[in-house]
Amino acid sequence: MGQVYSHMTMSLDGCIADPDDGIEELFGWYDAGEVTVPTEGDLPPFRVDEASAGVLREILAGTGALVCGRRLFDITDGWGDRHPLGAPVVVVTHTPPADAARRPRTTFVDGVAEAIAAARDIAGDADVAVASASVAAQALDLGLLDAVSISLVPVLLGRGIPHFADLAAGPHRFDDPVVVPGRRATHLTYAVRRGEDPSGNGTGEEGAR
Amino acid sequence: MGQVYSHMTMSLDGCIADPDDGIEELFGWYDAGEVTVPTEGDLPPFRVDEASAGVLREILAGTGALVCGRRLFDITDGWGDRHPLGAPVVVVTHTPPADAARRPRTTFVDGVAEAIAAARDIAGDADVAVASASVAAQALDLGLLDAVSISLVPVLLGRGIPHFADLAAGPHRFDDPVVVPGRRATHLTYAVRRGEDPSGNGTGEEGAR
Repeated sequence: MGQVYSHMTMSLDGCIADPDDGIEELFGWYDAGEVTVPTEGDLPPFRVDEASAGVLREILAGTGALVCGRRLFDITDGWGDRHPLGAPVVVVTHTPPADAARRPRTTFVDGVAEAIAAARDIAGDADVAVASASVAAQALDLGLLDAVSISLVPVLLGRGIPHFADLAAGPHRFDDPVVVPGRRATHLTYAVRRGEDPSGNGTGEEGAR
Repeated sequence: MGQVYSHMTMSLDGCIADPDDGIEELFGWYDAGEVTVPTEGDLPPFRVDEASAGVLREILAGTGALVCGRRLFDITDGWGDRHPLGAPVVVVTHTPPADAARRPRTTFVDGVAEAIAAARDIAGDADVAVASASVAAQALDLGLLDAVSISLVPVLLGRGIPHFADLAAGPHRFDDPVVVPGRRATHLTYAVRRGEDPSGNGTGEEGAR
């Protein structure tokens, strides 16, 4: 059974975009090197440093389905039904778009838990990636994330859209991360602490060492 | 001439304390290992992992003066005039406390730029550490920081006091960090980009690769 993980590119001050959804300051690492990593969608290939290429190849090889929110789906027009990772997409939404039938690789599901369950079914033994910050935060609160992966970019935006807004059940504690230093992003993967009360009411100290 | 750097312990969602100034979730790394690093103040020694001990020893050996804000001074009662790093402290404040004369190793200065200048004078060839988040943010906006150092703790607080609030002149761009993976904290030191317009109005792309 695969893992359910989130992966976001984030500024040092915790933002995933500027206040206008701009990502110019953040996504430079996708084009900061000489190693080409092809994608399966309409985007140009990634061109990254070797360490970041390893991270991307692992994501590409391991991910069997993605979950995103309706806002990201609308911003990207659902990646034209061809996500760059090559995996089917499950969108959390109350109201599927009118052209849903013309998007055979996209599923529309009402509710975060239901969407992750649907993505797990699609992914089988592969991993499920959560690609929207708001969905990741809700999944974390629900105890449905196994890992949180962050590509941490060496910039302070000063203002922007936070990765982890409106967490209802913090603090959320993680294991020490797997660290991959890349060019223009430090890749950090945190396993969510097992046996923690996701409500945050437990002592949480049992596994702290 | 030494460097002017900030060092803060920060959660993954960018907080340096919980909403009530609590640091229980953040400062565990100071007591998460077997290597004793003595301090010069009234605090017990740090007990950390070997990698974190190296980071702390470097800070202890290299820091010739500290700058902090009035709020931190009040919370700690000025560390009893004996900061754990063993260095003199410069406090940014409009109104020195009534007992200032009884604190020979503490200087009270009106203004962030003036405080950093005073600390540079005290430190000589050694480094100046900025120990308050609000002072660090202002120093960054003023172009007075050479490096930003963060001990990144594997926890999401959900709410708390942000490290980089009220930045007036973002985005601030840094070089890729020196990364030291420690137990219960990943130590990241970022050099502030040289030749950048601290107002953020420059293109900022010249040095991006």
